[in-house]
Amino acid sequence: MKMAVLVRTDLDMGKGKIAAQVAHAAVSLVLEIVQKRSKAEWKEWLEMWINQGQPKIVLKVKNLDELLEKYNKALQSGLPATIIQDAGKTQIEPGTITCAGIGPGPEEMIDNITGDLKLL
Amino acid sequence: MKMAVLVRTDLDMGKGKIAAQVAHAAVSLVLEIVQKRSKAEWKEWLEMWINQGQPKIVLKVKNLDELLEKYNKALQSGLPATIIQDAGKTQIEPGTITCAGIGPGPEEMIDNITGDLKLL
Repeated sequence: MKMAVLVRTDLDMGKGKIAAQVAHAAVSLVLEIVQKRSKAEWKEWLEMWINQGQPKIVLKVKNLDELLEKYNKALQSGLPATIIQDAGKTQIEPGTITCAGIGPGPEEMIDNITGDLKLL
Repeated sequence: MKMAVLVRTDLDMGKGKIAAQVAHAAVSLVLEIVQKRSKAEWKEWLEMWINQGQPKIVLKVKNLDELLEKYNKALQSGLPATIIQDAGKTQIEPGTITCAGIGPGPEEMIDNITGDLKLL
């Protein structure tokens, strides 16, 4: 199991800002599965992922189009996915989509979608 | 409400690595409160924090000593707190403590402990 978070590199975000946005994506994915009525399969994947030590990768996307393309593919393939909009108090415009979270899910399903992206 | 994640600046971590460690801390704090028997107050703080849009700050600590000092102060003051050890597959030695998460909790309680630290 793993989780992938995709970060836009066309925004001017410092490393602390990026870290906060990635954390927001990871927490949102987990909460959506824990707190809402979600697929039984997603709950199983989440449990397995937690037991494996929460493996995550942080990947680059070059712009919003690439981010949305990957997000939509993740949803279509049956993976949990979320998009994060920044509150915009610092560094960037309010409402800007900064990153997308995909998973937790089986590695091969995640790799099918994100395999062409580079590590941040 | 807010959450603070404290990142060691004396380790040679790239921005993707830092983001993954900070996300690990945030997810761990949330899961410990959601899944385990935790104080009713912590569950209330978590709910309020989620409803406020999960505000987080990412702060610098200069070394392991400063990280542990802040972590211990957080525990003593009754805040949720966690320490993250890296699996060490990349960049740093396995088992290295990379960051600490504190909260979610009331802003003034967090600021009492972390107010002297700079944003990453």
